[in-house]
Amino acid sequence: MGEFFKDIPRVKYEGRTSGNPLSFRFYNPDEVIGGKTMRETLKFALSWWHTMGGDGTDMFGSGTADKSWNASDSAERAKNKVYAAFEIMDKLGIEYFCFHDRDLSPDYGSLSETNAKLDEAAEVVAKMQAETGKKLLWGTANCFSHPRYMHGAGTSPSVDVFAFAGAQIKKALEITVKLGGNGYVFWGGREGYETLLNTDMGLELDNMARLMRLAVDYGRSIGFKGDFYVEPKPKEPTKHQYDFDSATVIGFLRKYGLDKDFKLNIEANHATLAMHTFQHELRVARESGMFGSIDANQGDTLLGWDTDQFPTNVYDCALCMYEVIKAGGFTHGGLNFDSKARRGSFAPEDIFHSYIAGMDAFALGLRIADKMIADGRIDKFVAERYASWNEGMGKDIISGKASLADLEKHALAKGEVTASLGSGRQEYLENVMNAIMFNL
Amino acid sequence: MGEFFKDIPRVKYEGRTSGNPLSFRFYNPDEVIGGKTMRETLKFALSWWHTMGGDGTDMFGSGTADKSWNASDSAERAKNKVYAAFEIMDKLGIEYFCFHDRDLSPDYGSLSETNAKLDEAAEVVAKMQAETGKKLLWGTANCFSHPRYMHGAGTSPSVDVFAFAGAQIKKALEITVKLGGNGYVFWGGREGYETLLNTDMGLELDNMARLMRLAVDYGRSIGFKGDFYVEPKPKEPTKHQYDFDSATVIGFLRKYGLDKDFKLNIEANHATLAMHTFQHELRVARESGMFGSIDANQGDTLLGWDTDQFPTNVYDCALCMYEVIKAGGFTHGGLNFDSKARRGSFAPEDIFHSYIAGMDAFALGLRIADKMIADGRIDKFVAERYASWNEGMGKDIISGKASLADLEKHALAKGEVTASLGSGRQEYLENVMNAIMFNL
Amino acid sequence: MGEFFKDIPRVKYEGRTSGNPLSFRFYNPDEVIGGKTMRETLKFALSWWHTMGGDGTDMFGSGTADKSWNASDSAERAKNKVYAAFEIMDKLGIEYFCFHDRDLSPDYGSLSETNAKLDEAAEVVAKMQAETGKKLLWGTANCFSHPRYMHGAGTSPSVDVFAFAGAQIKKALEITVKLGGNGYVFWGGREGYETLLNTDMGLELDNMARLMRLAVDYGRSIGFKGDFYVEPKPKEPTKHQYDFDSATVIGFLRKYGLDKDFKLNIEANHATLAMHTFQHELRVARESGMFGSIDANQGDTLLGWDTDQFPTNVYDCALCMYEVIKAGGFTHGGLNFDSKARRGSFAPEDIFHSYIAGMDAFALGLRIADKMIADGRIDKFVAERYASWNEGMGKDIISGKASLADLEKHALAKGEVTASLGSGRQEYLENVMNAIMFNL
Amino acid sequence: MGEFFKDIPRVKYEGRTSGNPLSFRFYNPDEVIGGKTMRETLKFALSWWHTMGGDGTDMFGSGTADKSWNASDSAERAKNKVYAAFEIMDKLGIEYFCFHDRDLSPDYGSLSETNAKLDEAAEVVAKMQAETGKKLLWGTANCFSHPRYMHGAGTSPSVDVFAFAGAQIKKALEITVKLGGNGYVFWGGREGYETLLNTDMGLELDNMARLMRLAVDYGRSIGFKGDFYVEPKPKEPTKHQYDFDSATVIGFLRKYGLDKDFKLNIEANHATLAMHTFQHELRVARESGMFGSIDANQGDTLLGWDTDQFPTNVYDCALCMYEVIKAGGFTHGGLNFDSKARRGSFAPEDIFHSYIAGMDAFALGLRIADKMIADGRIDKFVAERYASWNEGMGKDIISGKASLADLEKHALAKGEVTASLGSGRQEYLENVMNAIMFNL
Repeated sequence: MGEFFKDIPRVKYEGRTSGNPLSFRFYNPDEVIGGKTMRETLKFALSWWHTMGGDGTDMFGSGTADKSWNASDSAERAKNKVYAAFEIMDKLGIEYFCFHDRDLSPDYGSLSETNAKLDEAAEVVAKMQAETGKKLLWGTANCFSHPRYMHGAGTSPSVDVFAFAGAQIKKALEITVKLGGNGYVFWGGREGYETLLNTDMGLELDNMARLMRLAVDYGRSIGFKGDFYVEPKPKEPTKHQYDFDSATVIGFLRKYGLDKDFKLNIEANHATLAMHTFQHELRVARESGMFGSIDANQGDTLLGWDTDQFPTNVYDCALCMYEVIKAGGFTHGGLNFDSKARRGSFAPEDIFHSYIAGMDAFALGLRIADKMIADGRIDKFVAERYASWNEGMGKDIISGKASLADLEKHALAKGEVTASLGSGRQEYLENVMNAIMFNL
Repeated sequence: MGEFFKDIPRVKYEGRTSGNPLSFRFYNPDEVIGGKTMRETLKFALSWWHTMGGDGTDMFGSGTADKSWNASDSAERAKNKVYAAFEIMDKLGIEYFCFHDRDLSPDYGSLSETNAKLDEAAEVVAKMQAETGKKLLWGTANCFSHPRYMHGAGTSPSVDVFAFAGAQIKKALEITVKLGGNGYVFWGGREGYETLLNTDMGLELDNMARLMRLAVDYGRSIGFKGDFYVEPKPKEPTKHQYDFDSATVIGFLRKYGLDKDFKLNIEANHATLAMHTFQHELRVARESGMFGSIDANQGDTLLGWDTDQFPTNVYDCALCMYEVIKAGGFTHGGLNFDSKARRGSFAPEDIFHSYIAGMDAFALGLRIADKMIADGRIDKFVAERYASWNEGMGKDIISGKASLADLEKHALAKGEVTASLGSGRQEYLENVMNAIMFNL
Repeated sequence: MGEFFKDIPRVKYEGRTSGNPLSFRFYNPDEVIGGKTMRETLKFALSWWHTMGGDGTDMFGSGTADKSWNASDSAERAKNKVYAAFEIMDKLGIEYFCFHDRDLSPDYGSLSETNAKLDEAAEVVAKMQAETGKKLLWGTANCFSHPRYMHGAGTSPSVDVFAFAGAQIKKALEITVKLGGNGYVFWGGREGYETLLNTDMGLELDNMARLMRLAVDYGRSIGFKGDFYVEPKPKEPTKHQYDFDSATVIGFLRKYGLDKDFKLNIEANHATLAMHTFQHELRVARESGMFGSIDANQGDTLLGWDTDQFPTNVYDCALCMYEVIKAGGFTHGGLNFDSKARRGSFAPEDIFHSYIAGMDAFALGLRIADKMIADGRIDKFVAERYASWNEGMGKDIISGKASLADLEKHALAKGEVTASLGSGRQEYLENVMNAIMFNL
Repeated sequence: MGEFFKDIPRVKYEGRTSGNPLSFRFYNPDEVIGGKTMRETLKFALSWWHTMGGDGTDMFGSGTADKSWNASDSAERAKNKVYAAFEIMDKLGIEYFCFHDRDLSPDYGSLSETNAKLDEAAEVVAKMQAETGKKLLWGTANCFSHPRYMHGAGTSPSVDVFAFAGAQIKKALEITVKLGGNGYVFWGGREGYETLLNTDMGLELDNMARLMRLAVDYGRSIGFKGDFYVEPKPKEPTKHQYDFDSATVIGFLRKYGLDKDFKLNIEANHATLAMHTFQHELRVARESGMFGSIDANQGDTLLGWDTDQFPTNVYDCALCMYEVIKAGGFTHGGLNFDSKARRGSFAPEDIFHSYIAGMDAFALGLRIADKMIADGRIDKFVAERYASWNEGMGKDIISGKASLADLEKHALAKGEVTASLGSGRQEYLENVMNAIMFNL
C-alpha cells in the first residue's frame, strides 16, 4: 500500500512554546489530568466520512481536495482509504474512528453486492485494527444520501424504503459488532419534513420509533452491548427534523420506551443550529442521564447551515469538557471529529493541521475544565446560590410536604423578599473563567 | 363610568366589499362554517395586558398611548379598565377575555393588600360578566415582572421566591374559578437561565414541575375543572427558557406526570422565535393530544424578539385553523389576541383597527381552512402518499410482527425501489392552497 | 429531437375556478392590467441552471431528478437541453430565458475547447430563438463552481484566476450579445471570504471593481447596450460575500464609478438571507434609481440557507409588483425564476407544476398591486403623512435655507409637539391590504 | 456628596495570579505594549446611560438595581450621578466618559427648562473634570426615547419633530464642546421604519442626511474640531434602521458628501445583530478610512436583540485590538463600554465586577493582538498569499493597463491554474492564534 503522507511525521507533544506547526502544544496524551491520562479522557476519534471522503464539494462548487487515494476502482479505493485512515490515526495518535456503511464502501447496483463489498472493506479494517489496536467508537448507516431516502428512511411514506433502511441498519449493526464497536448512531437527516402540506407527522414519528426498536432488538440479539445514540439536529437537509435538539429527543425516547437503550450523541454545530449553546445541549443530556458521546466540531453562529468546522474555540471546548467531567466522563462514547477542513484547505497537510488544531483546542479545554473544578469558585457559587433548598421550607417543598396554602402562609409571613436575593454575578463568573483560562 | 370610545360604533359585518374601516369584511359571527357559527368556532378573546395596559413602551422609549382610563388613582383605574374592556368587547363582539393578576390590579406594598385590591377589581369584573355574559377564557399570575422574580419564580434559587410565586398562583387560581374560567396558563418568562455558570438546571426543572403539581392539586381542590396550559417560549426575557417549544414542554409534562392536567397554549410569535412555523407547533401539540388554546398574534421572522403583532398574515391564520379543525376544535381553549398595536399606532381607534384586522384575518383563515378540507385534494394526497402502511409489510411493521431480518428479506426481494416513489409535490400543493385562498 | 414532455399540453389560462392542475388560474397573458398586458409587465424567464440542470442534489444526498435529456454525451446533452428548454418555454408561454456559460455547455479540458463547445450550444439556442421568438433576458458566467475559484474569482489572491475569470466573462458577454441579451449579471458567490485571518479585504474589493470595469469596457466595445447587474447575496457559499445587500452594493458601485452601467438584480431569497424583506431590497434599489431585474423565488425565513423555492407567497409577490410598478416597470429586466423544485419534487411534471405555481402567484401579485394603486388608500395615507414637508419650515429645510439655530427657534416656539402626531396605522394598512387581496 | 461605594477600594493591577476579585489581572495601565502604555492605547470610557442610569428594566420586568443615587429630586439626582460617576471612574482608573443629553439631566416640561437644567448638570461635570482630569470621549442627543420620536427624529414625517431633534442636537453639541469632547455620535434608533406600507424611504434618507449636514455646519461654527460618528445598528427598536451596518453607512455618508466629517462608531453587539462579526465591521471601516471609535460590549449571537453585555470573550477583544492597531490606533475615539450588567447583577459591586471583566478582557485582547503582530506568522501568510499582485499581469491589472482581451490571452496561455493555488489554511491560522493566546 505504501505511505500516503510521506512528508508528515508522527505528531508529538512539544509544549506550548513549540514553533513546529506539526506538533501538539497542549495535547500531551500521557499527561495525567484529573486522575486520568489525556488520552483516556478525551478518546479522540477520526470521522471516516469527512476525513477520508470529503473533498470540499459544496452546493455551489465541486471538490477541491483529492480523496481518490491513488485508486480509480471503487473497491480498491475503499481498501486504500482504510490504509490511509490508519496512517492518519497513527501519525496523530488517534485511537478511535467512526464510520457510516457507505463511507467504508460505496453503493453498488444491488443490496447484496453492496453488502458483499462492504464485508470486504470491513475485513480490511478488522485486519488493520488487529495490527494497530485502533478501536471503533461507533458505526452507523447512511440512510440519507441515496435518492430512495428523499422522503425519509424510517419516516418514509413508503414501506419499501423503510424496509430498505432496516436492511441497511441490520448490516451496519453487524459490521459494528464485528469491529468491536460499543456505539451505534441514528442521525435522522431525512427524518423530518419539507412541508406539512404533504406530511402525516403522527405516523412518521411512530414509525421512526418502530425502526429504532427493531434495531435495538436485533442489536441485542447479535451481542451488541454498547449504547445506541440519537444525534439531534434541528434541520438541514430537511426543513424540520424530528430529532430537533436534546430535549426533544429525550422526550421522544421516553415516550416510546427507548430511553434505556439510547443516549445522545451531541454535536456542537447542531446545537447552535437549534439556537442552543453546545454546553446547553450537553447539560440537558447530562441532567437527564442521557449523555452519551460527542461530535466535536464548531459552527458559525452567524451562518445558518452546518459548517462542521474543526473546533478551535477554546471557550466552547472548555465548557464542553466541564460537562463531560461532571457527567463522569465518557463510558462508551468519545470525541469524534465530525469536522471537515474548509473547502479552501484542500491540501493533504491540511488534514493534519485541522486535527492538530481541534485536538489541541480540546486538550486546552480539558486543562481549563479541570482547573475550573479544582479552583472551585464557580461550583461553590452555585452551591451557595441554591442553599435555601437544603433546609426548612425548601426541604418541605422537595419532599412534597408543602401545599400551595403553606406557601401562601410562608409568603405572607415573610413579606417582600426581594432585598434578600443575591446577585447572579454573571460578569464576575465570566471574569473568573477568563482568569483561569489565561493563567494555565 | 361613561363611554370611553364615543366615536366608535359597534363593529358589524358588512361583507368583503365594505369600504367602512370600522366594519368586518370576513368575520360574520352568526354565519355557519363547517357546522358551527364562526363565533362558536373562533372563540376570540381580548388580552387584558396588551389591550388595557400596554402603552407602547419599548426598550428604547417610553409609552405613546394613554392607558390611564381617566383615572389617576390606581384602584380607580383598575375599575375603569374593566368598564373600558367590556366596552371594547361589546363593540367588537368579542365574548372572552384573559388576564394576569397584576393586569387586573397592580402590586401594592404587601401581598395581603395586593390581594385585597385584586378581589375588589375581580368583583367589578364579575358584576360586568353577569350583566353582559362575557366569559373568562383563562387566567394567570404574572410571576415575571417584579424584581423578586429576576432569577426565576418556580425556578428561583430562593425558596422564598418560590413560595411567593405559589401564593400568587393560589390567588390567581381562586380568581379564575370565581370568574368561571376554564383555563389557567403557565408562561415561564423567568423560568430559564441567563448563564449556565450560575445555574443548577436539574434542580430548577424539578422545582418548576413541583410548582405546577402544587397548582394542579390546589386548583382541583377548589373546583377548577378546566385545563392547565403551558405556553412555550424559547427565550426572551431570559437567554434560555425551559418551556422552549411544544416538543420540549410535552416531554417535560410527561416526565413529571403532568400530562393529564396540562395542555399547550400555542403562541404564533413564540413558535417562530423557536424557529418553527406556527403550524408546526400546533401540529406537534395536536399529534400528541396536547392541543389546548392559542395566543393569536404574529411575529416578524426577520426580527429576533417577540413583536406580538396583530395577526394579519392569512396564510398563517388559515393553516392554524386547519390544525384547529383537525384537532376537533377548541374544548376549553380559544383564540386569545396576545397582540399589541405597534408603538406608532397609539390612537384609541387603533385598538379597534387592530382587532378588526386580526379578527378578519382569522375569519378568512377559518373560511379557507374549511374550504381546504371540503375541497379534499390536500388530505387525499396525504392519505394516498402513506397508503402502503395500510397493508402487507406496512401492517406487519405497525403491528410489531416484522423483525429487522424480515425487513432485510423484503428489501433483498424488492431490489431498488427508488423508481416506485411518488413526488412530494410541494409546489403543486402550495398552488392548490393559493387556488383555494383566492377563490373564496 | 422529439418531444420531451409528451403528457404535458400547452398550459392555458382557464380562470380561477379551474380544477385543471395544468392550467393558469390567474395568469392571463393577454389580459391588460394597468395599461399593459400581463405578458409585457411580468416578463417571465426560465432559468437554465435550475430547470435544465438542477437534479435535486443537496449537501446530504445525490440527485433525484433525471436531467440527462436522453443523452449520455455531454455535447449532445447540451443540445437536447436547448430543445427541452424551448419546449418548456413554449408549453408555459414563457418568453425569456437566462443562462450561465456552463449551463449551456459544461467545462471541457481546456478553455479553448470549452469555448468552442459553448459556441456550438449557443448556435443551437440562436437557431431556436429565430424559430420561436424567445428572448435572452440576461447571461452570466459561472465563476464559482470550478475549484479554481475556491478563493474567489475577481477577488482571488491569484492573478491567474482573476485572468481566467476575465476570459470567461469575455466569452459570456460575447454569447450574450450574440443571443440578443440586454442584461449581464455578476453574482459573486465566491467574492467574499471564509476568514479574515487570511484575507486582504481592501485589495479584494478594489480588484472586484476592476473586473467589473473591464467587463463594462469590453461589453460596450462589442455593442452591448443593455444593463450590467450585480446580484446581492450576503453569504453562502462563503462566510461573507462583498455584495451583501442592495445598500452595500449601491455604495460599492458608486465608490468605484460603476453606478452608470450597473443596476441591481434583486433575488427574494437573498434578501431574506440578508435579514431584509424582498420589498425592502426592491425599495432600496428603486429609491436609488438602481432597480434592474428580479430573481423570482422565495426562501424560508426559518432556515439559514438559499432554498430557492418557487415563489408562492402572494403577499411577497404583490409587494414586489407594487415596487416594480412604482419603479416604472422593467426596462431591460424581467422576472427570472431562479427557483428549483424541491428535491422530493423530482418528476418531470413537477417542472410544470412549479412554474405554474410561481407564474400564478406573480400574476396574482400583479393584480393585487394594480388594485392597491387604483384603490389609492395606501398611497394617500403616505402622502398625507409627510405633508408637512411641502410647506413652511419643511420646504426651508429641504431647500437648505434653515440652520440648526432656526430649528431650535422653531422648536422653542412650537412647544411640545407629540400631541400633533398622527398614528402610523400599521394594522389598518395591513387590513386594507388584506381587504384588497381577498376581494379581487 | 460623600462616597457612594464605600466598600470598594481603588482597583489595582495585581497580575494574573491574583485571587482578589477587585483587582486587574491583565490591565496594567502603565505597562508599555507596542510602544504605548495600555492606558493610552485602550482609552476606556464609562457610559453614562447604562452605568449611571440603567436599572435592569427589561420588556418583561421592572428595575432591579437602585440607581437613585440617594436623591428623590431629579435635579439633585443628576448632580449625584456626576459625583458617583467620577467616583467609579476614579476607582477603576477610567479616563473618559460618554453621555446622551438626557442621561446627564432628564426631560422637564419644556425645552427651555430642560436645557437650563442640562446646563446646570453640565456645570457640575465640568467642575469635576477640572478637579480630576477626566475627559469627555463623545456626547450625543437622545432622539429616540421620547414619544415625539416614535416615527423618527431626522426621519420623522413631521417637520416639527425634525426641528425638535435639531434643537436637541444643537444643545448637545454645545455641551460637548463645553466639556472638551472630541466626538459627537449619531445613533439612529428611530431612524428607520416599522412597515414600508406607511413609509417614504427616499424622503426619509434625504432628511436624515440634511440633519447631519446641519449638525456639522453648526458644530464647526462653534469650534468643534473632533469627529462626528454614525453608529450602525440594523434594527431594534425599529424593524429596519437605515444605519444598518458599516458598509451601508459608508455608502450613505459618501452619497451625501458627509464622509469628510463623519467616521464610524462600531459596536460589537450591533455588528452581530447585522449578522457580521465585530472584526468584520471594524475591517470594513478601517479599509474605508472611516474607523473612528468603538462601543465595547458583546451580544449573544443565539439571541436576536441587543443584550449589551460586558465584553468577556477574549477572541473578539483580541481581533478588535488587532484591527485598532492596524488602523493606527484611535485618534479621537476610544473604547466606550456601552455595556450593562445583567438584570440579575443588580448589586452596586456588580458595576465594578463588570468593568473589571471588560477591561481585563480588552487588556488581554491588546496583549494578544500585539503578540500576533510581533509574531508575524499571520501577516506574513496574507502577504504571501496575494504576492502575485505585485508583479507582471497583477501590476498591469492594478495599473489599468490590461484589458479583458489581455486577460483572455493570459488565461489561454496559462492553461488550467488550479494546481498552482495555495491552501487557504484557515485551521492552521486559527491554531496559530490559539497558540499565541495561550502562551502569553
